[in-house]
Amino acid sequence: MSKNQFGLIGLAVMGQNLVLNAADHGFRVSVFNRTAEKTDEFMAGEARGKSITATYTKEEFVDSLERPRTVQIMVKAGGPVDDVINQLKPLLDAGDIIIDGGNSFFPDTERRARELESINLRFIGMGVSGGEEGARYGPSLMPGGTKEAYTIIEPLVTAIAAKAPSDGAPCVTFIGPGGAGHYVKMVHNGIEYGDMQLISESYAVLKAAIDPSPKEFHQIFSDWNAGELSSFLIEITADIFCKMDDKTGKPLVDLVLDKAGQKGTGKWTSQNALDIGAAIPTITAAVDGRILSSMKEERVTASKILFGPKNTYSGDRQKIIDAVRAALYASKICSYAQGMALLKKASSEYGYGLNLPEIARIWRAGCIIRARLLDDIMHAYRRNPTLPNLLMDDEFKQAIQSRQDAWRFAVKTAIELGIPVPAMSASLAYFDAYRSERLPANLIQAQRDYFGAHTFERIDQPGVFHANWKVK
Amino acid sequence: MSKNQFGLIGLAVMGQNLVLNAADHGFRVSVFNRTAEKTDEFMAGEARGKSITATYTKEEFVDSLERPRTVQIMVKAGGPVDDVINQLKPLLDAGDIIIDGGNSFFPDTERRARELESINLRFIGMGVSGGEEGARYGPSLMPGGTKEAYTIIEPLVTAIAAKAPSDGAPCVTFIGPGGAGHYVKMVHNGIEYGDMQLISESYAVLKAAIDPSPKEFHQIFSDWNAGELSSFLIEITADIFCKMDDKTGKPLVDLVLDKAGQKGTGKWTSQNALDIGAAIPTITAAVDGRILSSMKEERVTASKILFGPKNTYSGDRQKIIDAVRAALYASKICSYAQGMALLKKASSEYGYGLNLPEIARIWRAGCIIRARLLDDIMHAYRRNPTLPNLLMDDEFKQAIQSRQDAWRFAVKTAIELGIPVPAMSASLAYFDAYRSERLPANLIQAQRDYFGAHTFERIDQPGVFHANWKVK
Repeated sequence: MSKNQFGLIGLAVMGQNLVLNAADHGFRVSVFNRTAEKTDEFMAGEARGKSITATYTKEEFVDSLERPRTVQIMVKAGGPVDDVINQLKPLLDAGDIIIDGGNSFFPDTERRARELESINLRFIGMGVSGGEEGARYGPSLMPGGTKEAYTIIEPLVTAIAAKAPSDGAPCVTFIGPGGAGHYVKMVHNGIEYGDMQLISESYAVLKAAIDPSPKEFHQIFSDWNAGELSSFLIEITADIFCKMDDKTGKPLVDLVLDKAGQKGTGKWTSQNALDIGAAIPTITAAVDGRILSSMKEERVTASKILFGPKNTYSGDRQKIIDAVRAALYASKICSYAQGMALLKKASSEYGYGLNLPEIARIWRAGCIIRARLLDDIMHAYRRNPTLPNLLMDDEFKQAIQSRQDAWRFAVKTAIELGIPVPAMSASLAYFDAYRSERLPANLIQAQRDYFGAHTFERIDQPGVFHANWKVK
Repeated sequence: MSKNQFGLIGLAVMGQNLVLNAADHGFRVSVFNRTAEKTDEFMAGEARGKSITATYTKEEFVDSLERPRTVQIMVKAGGPVDDVINQLKPLLDAGDIIIDGGNSFFPDTERRARELESINLRFIGMGVSGGEEGARYGPSLMPGGTKEAYTIIEPLVTAIAAKAPSDGAPCVTFIGPGGAGHYVKMVHNGIEYGDMQLISESYAVLKAAIDPSPKEFHQIFSDWNAGELSSFLIEITADIFCKMDDKTGKPLVDLVLDKAGQKGTGKWTSQNALDIGAAIPTITAAVDGRILSSMKEERVTASKILFGPKNTYSGDRQKIIDAVRAALYASKICSYAQGMALLKKASSEYGYGLNLPEIARIWRAGCIIRARLLDDIMHAYRRNPTLPNLLMDDEFKQAIQSRQDAWRFAVKTAIELGIPVPAMSASLAYFDAYRSERLPANLIQAQRDYFGAHTFERIDQPGVFHANWKVK
C-alpha cells in the first residue's frame, strides 16, 4: 500500500477543511485527532470516498506517511502546539517537516523553529487565512520557517491555496525564516481589525446622519463593492443587511449585541508595533474600539448621564454617502500604509527579508482582507520595491489627495453628530502627520529638556544641546 | 560613631539630589557609587558639610547603616538593578530593606519582590517623579512592595516628598504589594505622554490658525496656567516661549528639532493596557505621535509630495484660542479618565488594591503631571471611591459637557487646516464612545460570525447564536 503524502493532526473545522481541500487536489492524506470519535465522524461524513486515511495513534499516523514526512498541526495556539510537537519528535526522522497552521504567536514560532532545526527536523509556521470557507476551497497561506522545507511542501500549498481572480496565481509564497509566516499573519489580522472598525464607523456615521433602511444599507455597500472598495468584507457587509431574524422579522444585525470579541492577534500587532517603533494608529484604534465596545454595561449607564451634541445632519443625502465612501477608502489606504510600513520595519528588525509585493499578492484572494486594493498595493511595490510608504506611490497619493476634502467632511460630520470615529480620525491624523515637514514635537523636546535635562537636537546645526529654559 | 539611617547606591543626578534632600531633612546618609571619582566629586561639592558619609566598598556601605538597613538603589533599570541586588544580598541581614527608585518595568519589580521576600529581605519598588528638581526639593513618591517595610521608611519618604500646595500633605503613600509602585509610576508617565502630546497639538493648531508670536504664545499659556489648566507642564510651556537662542536671537523652541525621544514607559503603559483590556487611546496616540515625529527624514520627503488642504482660519482670533483651551482641558480630562480606569482595572487584575484618591493626591505636587486638575480628581474619587470612570463624576461631567461645542470646533478646525491632532481626536472619540449606549460593534460581530462562525449575543434574548448570513 502506498504511503500518504500529507498528514494533519487536529480535526476541528479548519483542519477538516484543509484535509478535504488537499484530497480534492489529488493528495493522499492521513488524519489524526486526539479523540477518535471526531475522526470517525469525519471519516463517515465529508471524508467518505476521498483519499483520506484515518489513524488512531501517533505511531500509526507517522508510519502512514511518505518520507520526508509532511505533518501539519491544527490545534489551539500555545501549549497544545508544544505538546503535539513533543509527542511527534521521537517518532519523526531527520528531514521530516512539521507545519504549524494555527494562529501561533510569532516568538513561539521562532523558538520552535530553532529547537526543531537543531535536531534536524524542519519547521514551517504557516499563517492560514480565510476562515472555514477559505480552508475548504482555497485559503491565503503564509508559510515561514525552514527554507528548504518550503520546496518540498510547495506543490501541496500551491494546490490548496486560493487563486487570485485577476491572474490565477496561487496565494502562497515562502515568507521568510523563523516566525516570519506567523508574523505576517499577525499583521494581516491587525489590518483586518482596522478594516472592520472602519466599516463599522462608516455604518455608524451613515446611520446617525441619514438612517438608511437595511435595504438602503444593502444597496450602499453593494454599490461600494462594485468600485474601488471591492472586497470580501464590504461584500459580506452588504449581505448582512439582508438577513432578517426568523423570529422577529427584524433585520438580524440590529439585534446583535454590540460587544466585539477578539482573540488577541490585533492586540499582538499593536503591541509589537510599539516595540519596534512603528506607528499603526488606525489598527490600534480598532483594537481599542473593540475594548470600548466590550464595556457595554458601563456605556449603557454612561449614556444616561453624558450627553452629546444636539446636531443633526441636514445636508444632501448622497453627499454624505459619497463622503463616507471616500473617507472609508482613504482611511483604509492609510491603514494598509501603516501595516505595510510595519512589515518593512519588522523585516529589518528580525531579518525576515520580507518581500512586500509578494505579501500583497498572496493577500489578494482567500483571506479575510482580500480586496481589489491589494492588486494596487502589489503593483505599487512592484513599481518600487523600496517604497518607504504606500502613500508615496503616485497612484495612492492621487487616490488619497483627491478624496481628502470629502474625507475631512465625513470626519467633521461625525464629530458634529457625536459619533465616535476613532479609526477614521487616526488615519487622517496619520496622513496629516506623515506629510508634515514640521511637527510640534520640538515643544515636547523642549519640555523634556526643561524638566529632565533630556537634551535636544537643533534644526540649524548638528550636535546635542541642553538649555536652561527657566524664566527668572 | 552612630550609624547612618539611609544608604543610597548610584550617584547620578537623581541619586545625588535624593541624598541631599534626605540630608536637608536631618537624615544621616551613606552613599556608594561604582566609580569612586564620582563619590569624591559629590563629597567635595554639594555634599560638603552635610550629614553624608562616603563609602568605597559595598561592605563598608552596608556596615555604616543602622539596622534594619534601608538601602536605596538609583541605577539604570534592568540588569544593573539585578547586579546591585545580587551584590547586596550576601551582605544584608533579615529584615533589611532594598528600595529600587529607578524606572523599573513593574514585572521585574514583581519578580524581585518575590525573590527578596523569600529570603527574608524586604523590597520596595518606588516610582520617583519630578526630575532632578523634584528629587532635590520634593518628588512625588510611589512606593510599593513589602508592606511592613513601608512603616519603617515612612518617616524618610514623608520628609523628602513634595508637599501639596493646597493642604501641605506629603506626596507619598504606600501604593500596594509587589510591583504596584512601579506600575503606578508607569501609568503616571503614560499620562505625562498624553499631556505633552495634547499641549503640542494645541500649540500646532494655534500656530496654523493664527500664528501667535512667541510673546503671544507665552501670554496664552500664562493665561491658561492661571485657570483650570494650571499645571507644571503648562507653566514650563509658557516659560519655553521666552527663551531666546543666544547665538541667533531667535526663539529657541523654533530651532529645536521636532523628533521626540522616549524612554519606554509610555510604550509599556500602552502595551500593558492592551494586555489587560483597558482602552487608553489618548495615551497611545501620544506614543504613536512620538514615533511619527521621529520619522523626520521620511516626513520631510513626504511633505514635498503629499499636500494638505488649502484652507486658512478666518474666524475670530480669541474664538480659536478659547476653543483650543477648552479642547485641551476636555481632552486632558479624557486622558486622565483613561489612566485612572487603567489603574482600576490593573488593581483587580494584579490584586494591587490601589487607592485611587490617594494616587491622585500624591500626584498633586512634586511630579511632572502635577496640576490643579489632580485636586479635583482626588475629590471626585473621595466623593465616590467606586466611580467607574472619571467622566461619571458630576463635576467632570459638567466640565466636559460645557466645553464640548468648543472642543468639537477646535478639532474640526484642525482637520480643516490639515493639522494632525491624534490625541485630541482620540479623547473626543473616547468620550463619544464611552457615552454610546449602542456602538456599531454589532456589525463587527455579524462579520465575525459570517466569516469565522465566531457566534454572537443578542440584545433581546440571552444565549449565544450563529447565523447563516450568506445571501443567495
